[in-house]
Amino acid sequence: MGSNLRIDGERLLARLAALAAIGATPEGGCRRLALTDEDRQGRDWLVAEMRSLGLDVRIDAIGNVVGILKGREDGPAVIMGSHIDTVGTGGRYDGALGVVAGLEVLATLRAAGIVPPRDMAVIAFTNEEGARFQPDMLGSLVWAGGMTLDAAYAQADAEGAGLGAELARIGYRGPERPGFLPAGAYFELHIEQGPVLESEGGGIGAVTGVQAITWLELTLGGKPSHAGTTPMGYRRDPGLATARLIVFANELTGTIPGQLANCGVVRVSPGNVNVVPETVTMTLDLRNPDDGGIAEAETAIRRFCAELSARDDVTIALRDLARFPATPFDETLIAGIEACAAEFGLPVRRIISGAGHDAQMMARLCPTAMIFIPSIGGLSHNPAERSTDADIVAGAGILLAAAWRAANA
Amino acid sequence: MGSNLRIDGERLLARLAALAAIGATPEGGCRRLALTDEDRQGRDWLVAEMRSLGLDVRIDAIGNVVGILKGREDGPAVIMGSHIDTVGTGGRYDGALGVVAGLEVLATLRAAGIVPPRDMAVIAFTNEEGARFQPDMLGSLVWAGGMTLDAAYAQADAEGAGLGAELARIGYRGPERPGFLPAGAYFELHIEQGPVLESEGGGIGAVTGVQAITWLELTLGGKPSHAGTTPMGYRRDPGLATARLIVFANELTGTIPGQLANCGVVRVSPGNVNVVPETVTMTLDLRNPDDGGIAEAETAIRRFCAELSARDDVTIALRDLARFPATPFDETLIAGIEACAAEFGLPVRRIISGAGHDAQMMARLCPTAMIFIPSIGGLSHNPAERSTDADIVAGAGILLAAAWRAANA
Repeated sequence: MGSNLRIDGERLLARLAALAAIGATPEGGCRRLALTDEDRQGRDWLVAEMRSLGLDVRIDAIGNVVGILKGREDGPAVIMGSHIDTVGTGGRYDGALGVVAGLEVLATLRAAGIVPPRDMAVIAFTNEEGARFQPDMLGSLVWAGGMTLDAAYAQADAEGAGLGAELARIGYRGPERPGFLPAGAYFELHIEQGPVLESEGGGIGAVTGVQAITWLELTLGGKPSHAGTTPMGYRRDPGLATARLIVFANELTGTIPGQLANCGVVRVSPGNVNVVPETVTMTLDLRNPDDGGIAEAETAIRRFCAELSARDDVTIALRDLARFPATPFDETLIAGIEACAAEFGLPVRRIISGAGHDAQMMARLCPTAMIFIPSIGGLSHNPAERSTDADIVAGAGILLAAAWRAANA
Repeated sequence: MGSNLRIDGERLLARLAALAAIGATPEGGCRRLALTDEDRQGRDWLVAEMRSLGLDVRIDAIGNVVGILKGREDGPAVIMGSHIDTVGTGGRYDGALGVVAGLEVLATLRAAGIVPPRDMAVIAFTNEEGARFQPDMLGSLVWAGGMTLDAAYAQADAEGAGLGAELARIGYRGPERPGFLPAGAYFELHIEQGPVLESEGGGIGAVTGVQAITWLELTLGGKPSHAGTTPMGYRRDPGLATARLIVFANELTGTIPGQLANCGVVRVSPGNVNVVPETVTMTLDLRNPDDGGIAEAETAIRRFCAELSARDDVTIALRDLARFPATPFDETLIAGIEACAAEFGLPVRRIISGAGHDAQMMARLCPTAMIFIPSIGGLSHNPAERSTDADIVAGAGILLAAAWRAANA
């Protein structure tokens, strides 16, 4: 038994479509920002699906939604999961795929009348995207004990709404202690969100880990002055300093192996055509598969900021928004995923995850791995984000096989 | 007669304080955006002051407020003026000084019982700042015949309120034809709005002209992608291109004599930490005392944009927001200002105006000149914008002397 198990692709795709209809946008994507009414609708749908499969549904105090298929014996559970919140202009599958595929795995076992040797569960973690509340991966971070409930509840969105209050408002501030279900292994199926698998000819990605991530917010301060009456030599222009820093960060990616850098936020104040800016707030998203590499990049950025501050006579304040070390995944589980793909005759390649995922929090608790499927055009966080039905079904099949393998290990 | 005339400094400062109280802000500045209720209060105060001096008060169809001291003979008038509208976070003297000092000049003549050889007038022009309605210097532009009334009336503010309707609402859509008063000379006293006079030891600025101004809006388009999952080589990042352009524009100011450049607006979309930007909208404010110089700068910018578009695989669209050639002032009037300053024993230096002023529109109609007084710390468009009482009184004295000299020329 085991290798005869096959997921029901049509049922999987139908559930994905049903979830995608909640918070659907005219552009074909999804907008289910964490703890909004759309997120609540998605959660309500998920809970109803879990109940329809006879799962033991539990909500923890940070709103993580857990559906448990009881096993024959006690012992750490094999957990599958991801998230159902999206960014403001999100796609249909980011997060949703891992949750709905996990549900499909349990549905397949139920339909076959199989009671697993130990508990198997699927979890939808709260606020993975970090689009509404900081930090991202908050639900799995709290689950893994990396953040207290009080600290999480105190997070506020841009309008000042508190996370704890919003959880209660939508009815998902549950009774369970985060982390209440001991984990023996964790699997997360996810779209790649990048162009690598597609450009390499498709197939399954056996994810070797998540690269290190550092998010910095920089506030640059100068002196507002009139753009017509202030000679260049009298200016203290934080906009110019920002531009130099963006160019520098980009050059850095050419000199430190594996280094990525992005400046996604630039806010200029006061923001008038004829006023030399007074302040600029910008962010830097630095990533590297290697902790040493990202440390080198950050050191170089900080050194450059010190030079820039003197050169352009501006103040520069740096603040950490997020900081996660590189997270290597479990070699046994990675090899298991490769073996399952080979068994199904699917091409597979090892790949590093460029994005953060709940899996990196779960890796603090138990052997963890992820399965990637190709993203068409590499698009992500975009209404046009898509993967083929064939890849979705293949990925869920690997999730079933790998999770079942771990449950029986 | 003439050189015995002296303005009344206390009366001048009291009137400036009275006008500054209208739309006064807690920070010590003024907020009298064009055609708002605060602007109406300022206009009502001005009209009452003009009437109290026995001036012939006329309102034209674009809301320019004209106070005329009739002369002995017919002939083109010597006009003084500026504006009383402010930017959102404006100061006390920008514009107000030129109007109130013009009023003081006529008050001085009246008090001395003098009937000038030809008409002398003071005008407060509508919407000089361009903070609420585009373009700036609109009232003087219409007065000079550079824009039709219909086109001006059709301008709308950010909330969609029409200029024509707002003029009527505040009761200043008057009966006179803009430009109805033939001009023989125009003088405008203004704060420098920059640091040059102060840093050169103070004194009077005899303004030689207004530098050329070109405002460009650039829209850069790339491809939004995930900052963690998209290798650097796959990115099409308009934020990076924007940064390169800002650095380039700054370098250009070091190679083209007299060239200024400012990027005051940068809007990044979607504006998420972990999303490579999709579009950036930015502005460039280019200025140069020489039309050839500014043309050279713009050509270089456009050439660089073409290179950038290819280099970073982004689209770049340029749009004109404003474009004014350099406006040299009248040499006879400039020399007259210098002579008056010398007569009063005041230090005087020639200076170019970095900002646009109503004077540059009036220069289309008649010999024109401006008088600058120092701005403390070079501050402008700022609640903390200040000039010393001594400089204000000295500047008004030069305005009287220079205008009287022109009226008798």
